[in-house]
Amino acid sequence: MTVQSKAAARPSSVTTGPIAGSRKIYSSPAGHPGIRVPFREIALDPSAKEEPYRAYDCSGVYTDPSVTIDLEAGLPPIRREWLAKRGFDRIVPRPVKPEDNGNIAADKLVPLCPAELPVYGARPGQMVTQYEFARAGIVTEEMIYVAHRENMGRTAMIAGAEERIADGESFGAEIPAFITPEFVRSEIARGRAIIPANINHPELEPVIIGRNFLVKINANIGNSAVTSGVAEEVEKLVWSTRWGADTVMDLSTGRNIHNIRSWIMRNSAVPIGTVPIYQALEKVDGDPTKLDWEVFKDTLIEQAEQGVDYFTIHAGVRLKYVPLTAKRVTGIVSRGGSIMAKWCLSRHKESFLYERFDEICDIMRKYDVSFSLGDGLRPGSNADANDAAQFGELETLGELTKVAWNKGCQVMIEGPGHVPMHKIKVNMTKQLAECGEAPFYTLGPLTTDIAPGYDHITSAIGAAMIGWYGTAMLCYVTPKEHLGLPNRDDVKTGVITYRIAAHAADLAKGHPAAQLRDDAVSRARFEFRWEDQFNLSLDPDTARSYHDETLPKEAHKVAHFCSMCGPKFCSMKITQDLRAEAERMAGMDAKSAEFAEAGKEIYLPQAAAD
Amino acid sequence: MTVQSKAAARPSSVTTGPIAGSRKIYSSPAGHPGIRVPFREIALDPSAKEEPYRAYDCSGVYTDPSVTIDLEAGLPPIRREWLAKRGFDRIVPRPVKPEDNGNIAADKLVPLCPAELPVYGARPGQMVTQYEFARAGIVTEEMIYVAHRENMGRTAMIAGAEERIADGESFGAEIPAFITPEFVRSEIARGRAIIPANINHPELEPVIIGRNFLVKINANIGNSAVTSGVAEEVEKLVWSTRWGADTVMDLSTGRNIHNIRSWIMRNSAVPIGTVPIYQALEKVDGDPTKLDWEVFKDTLIEQAEQGVDYFTIHAGVRLKYVPLTAKRVTGIVSRGGSIMAKWCLSRHKESFLYERFDEICDIMRKYDVSFSLGDGLRPGSNADANDAAQFGELETLGELTKVAWNKGCQVMIEGPGHVPMHKIKVNMTKQLAECGEAPFYTLGPLTTDIAPGYDHITSAIGAAMIGWYGTAMLCYVTPKEHLGLPNRDDVKTGVITYRIAAHAADLAKGHPAAQLRDDAVSRARFEFRWEDQFNLSLDPDTARSYHDETLPKEAHKVAHFCSMCGPKFCSMKITQDLRAEAERMAGMDAKSAEFAEAGKEIYLPQAAAD
Repeated sequence: MTVQSKAAARPSSVTTGPIAGSRKIYSSPAGHPGIRVPFREIALDPSAKEEPYRAYDCSGVYTDPSVTIDLEAGLPPIRREWLAKRGFDRIVPRPVKPEDNGNIAADKLVPLCPAELPVYGARPGQMVTQYEFARAGIVTEEMIYVAHRENMGRTAMIAGAEERIADGESFGAEIPAFITPEFVRSEIARGRAIIPANINHPELEPVIIGRNFLVKINANIGNSAVTSGVAEEVEKLVWSTRWGADTVMDLSTGRNIHNIRSWIMRNSAVPIGTVPIYQALEKVDGDPTKLDWEVFKDTLIEQAEQGVDYFTIHAGVRLKYVPLTAKRVTGIVSRGGSIMAKWCLSRHKESFLYERFDEICDIMRKYDVSFSLGDGLRPGSNADANDAAQFGELETLGELTKVAWNKGCQVMIEGPGHVPMHKIKVNMTKQLAECGEAPFYTLGPLTTDIAPGYDHITSAIGAAMIGWYGTAMLCYVTPKEHLGLPNRDDVKTGVITYRIAAHAADLAKGHPAAQLRDDAVSRARFEFRWEDQFNLSLDPDTARSYHDETLPKEAHKVAHFCSMCGPKFCSMKITQDLRAEAERMAGMDAKSAEFAEAGKEIYLPQAAAD
Repeated sequence: MTVQSKAAARPSSVTTGPIAGSRKIYSSPAGHPGIRVPFREIALDPSAKEEPYRAYDCSGVYTDPSVTIDLEAGLPPIRREWLAKRGFDRIVPRPVKPEDNGNIAADKLVPLCPAELPVYGARPGQMVTQYEFARAGIVTEEMIYVAHRENMGRTAMIAGAEERIADGESFGAEIPAFITPEFVRSEIARGRAIIPANINHPELEPVIIGRNFLVKINANIGNSAVTSGVAEEVEKLVWSTRWGADTVMDLSTGRNIHNIRSWIMRNSAVPIGTVPIYQALEKVDGDPTKLDWEVFKDTLIEQAEQGVDYFTIHAGVRLKYVPLTAKRVTGIVSRGGSIMAKWCLSRHKESFLYERFDEICDIMRKYDVSFSLGDGLRPGSNADANDAAQFGELETLGELTKVAWNKGCQVMIEGPGHVPMHKIKVNMTKQLAECGEAPFYTLGPLTTDIAPGYDHITSAIGAAMIGWYGTAMLCYVTPKEHLGLPNRDDVKTGVITYRIAAHAADLAKGHPAAQLRDDAVSRARFEFRWEDQFNLSLDPDTARSYHDETLPKEAHKVAHFCSMCGPKFCSMKITQDLRAEAERMAGMDAKSAEFAEAGKEIYLPQAAAD
């Protein structure tokens, strides 16, 4: 069932029901019946004689027909018991203030999501973050969950895993043949992976971000002052995760920002990221020069208590770097970066985010909000790639990473942006070196600037490459980039495009399970199992509709050709005929050997060829 | 003016008129007023204070409003005088036979294009191919033409060209800062570049294919037995070159194949390639086992006399390689490859294409039809990439390249296919080594198999990379790949996607002029010259329509924001404000130096920050 959301003040419906050809299943790691990890199982035609294919699944219970979706009640809080055991204090939340929603008139106020939750916070000295548990040698439920999820629910190494790893080129990543909870713990303890998981987001299905795991993708949603409302944004959340967004950033600006976020948080099974400076700026009427630590701190607490899982913090935009952008072709293109640059310059002061970084860490640690250290000085054009401003900021982000780790926080690092292909690799190498292998999270990069309207593609090229080199999460770019706010179709195109980039990266790194899906699709293709080919693909609906444009009849779903070549010219059909023939023929191998011996002469005497 | 073609037996109209925001201009190299090279000039807003941007232009006179298009008369034969000077014999063409059009009933026969031309052929020993002229030290008009075209009509090296080359990573390519006709000649003489230019295609606007030139792209068109007709195919030719196809392959099968080709040849300004085995197979009722040298030879002559510029010849599919495909996941996926494999196996004989290769060369040389040595054993899935069958065939193609050169022919080599990222580079390295640096011409490669419906994207990733590594021409893949015959929209999407890949490759190789367009777009973007940004992009219509979806008013075309962020959050606007402010402020540089000296301490005393 696909239900379009209505553009109403209160979200009423979202897209639900399984993705074509698949069904939701749950699998529990041995000994942990309370941990139920979702997968999407794709049944194949009986002629295939193959087990159903099991796919990673970000879509939450929206694709589970046995669950009744009620946006006002929110999602089931699957982490509640795990969190309860950890004994955090229930705290009195910061009250919602009129400025949290932009002082909007009562008749235009989007209501809060009614799914109210108690708010928790850690005491000073109490372990709360996944990083702290990992450092203490403690394996959390979240770690067990993601290990099972990364293994696609397998209980043992798949056949050929080690060969596939050896066949890949990982550039120093160390992907194991089988993921254990202990491996997850050790990666988190080393700072090489994070599980963004605010203790006030019990609805979360945990996901791990690190270069020794599957490459993840993020989708940006959020209204702007110009367009869109709460109904569209909740639908974009559901819609983007349906197609494979591992995390979602709510980049809303404008009014109703607090209340829209309440709907998003209570109805999200994926980690939600935000950029708190956006809301802080709204609170000071959009004037960067009026920002100060108090309003920013207030916003951090407000959002952390709502359950946001990671914050982009542009603490690397130091005053000394701002003049380095003066000669750039496109200046500063990060919203947060430009806000902070304006603040620094107008006051002739060092960034308060940098100066108060210790305090920011303390707030984020209290709820286990992960850092996404923002690259406010990322290049906005190929011309500006890898310049002194960008790399200067990256060095500062490396310095801040160590501060945050010392404070017990989880950290990832944001990266560019616009970078031509030959300048991509050094971004990864330098990030790993400067930031102690903390996960890299890049926006593309776009490999050329000349194709507005197609920047999902210009950036997918760079994203696939940097994912291969070691980026842990790729932030999607939609076709509307540089032109306008993406709509629902753009969101889907962006997500599918980035699933392609992430998967291409997994394949190239030698991820032990990645190629299984390619092989399943290829077998289905070669055997003319059209329905299997559609259902195994990233977007069954589009594949089916493209096929049906020219050969709509059901009979063609078993036809041994398609409209591209027609029946006589289908190479796969000819090859199948050829194999059948070859099986009838004896001595095929002998014939091959005979020809191999005949060597490389062009003109064999007819006798030798017979 | 955009006129949709009608699905009629005789093509009546095609898309004409300039691409939005540009006009056709012609430029002649010094001393050659008879050589008029087309470009597309994009005028910029006066506020930019920039010269109009000059873009490479494949679109022929269809985008020149001063030329009246008459499909029945064909295009102006711009090469006629150049060819006339070379003194080729006018020959009596092979008569058109009923089987050339599949013995179609008279009432269903598409008429021949009325634009009849005399047919020419070279005498034995007479120089005819660009390779022969180049080897003899002769610079042809075609060489002068492409040199001027590659330089974008510049008469001298552009400023900064050497720095850009040094800044790139060319993997051994040797792109000069300025292209001279003599450089073109020397590259052709070394076999490193070709100008596909049949002497019976006088309408051709010459284009050079080689890794020391701009990366080119090919679009496939052609009807199949299942769908499409002549009107659609001529429109696809015009449409694909409008958006940037440098060459077009007519892969038609089914009936009317000869007569459809007559319309395509007489109305094409770009080199046309074909796969003659397709038509040969039609002549033997679609049964590969009935193919023989006589029917193939007859087809070569038929098509060469029509003016086809390059032929895909699958002469590398030797009998000994066929058994190597038996264990593949997807067997043989090239139509030509599977046809020849079936022929070889069914007769237990070496391929007649391989055995008659000398004679094929003699025919192709006579008209200067270039070889595109087909990769009939290319992998059809990631699982089959870089296997013994594929690389065995590549070695044979290398052997045949030298035979063809000795016969005086121009040669390029076709490449895969489906290859994961980490296995792409060796394809390029091995091709260069085996084939003496003859130009490589690859289909993608697709970097994953799991996204039917999006294979323009899965393959653009691989295409950009292999183009960077040295591939001279990229064969496009459309969204319909594996699913059906592409329509007009799919063709455009495929072409734009591959223009992105080719340009990303040019940038990364350090092509001295490539980044100029990126910089022009980026400046327009930063200065909110929306119309300039649209017009400079690869697809102005799409960029404009995406922008206008959310901000349609004309006033917004000068607005200093878009709907993505809205006015308050536009980083570019903030940066511009910031620059204006910085100019008012004194001592910005001094401030920077002060902070640089202060080093990396996180907490500067307030006094130091003030």
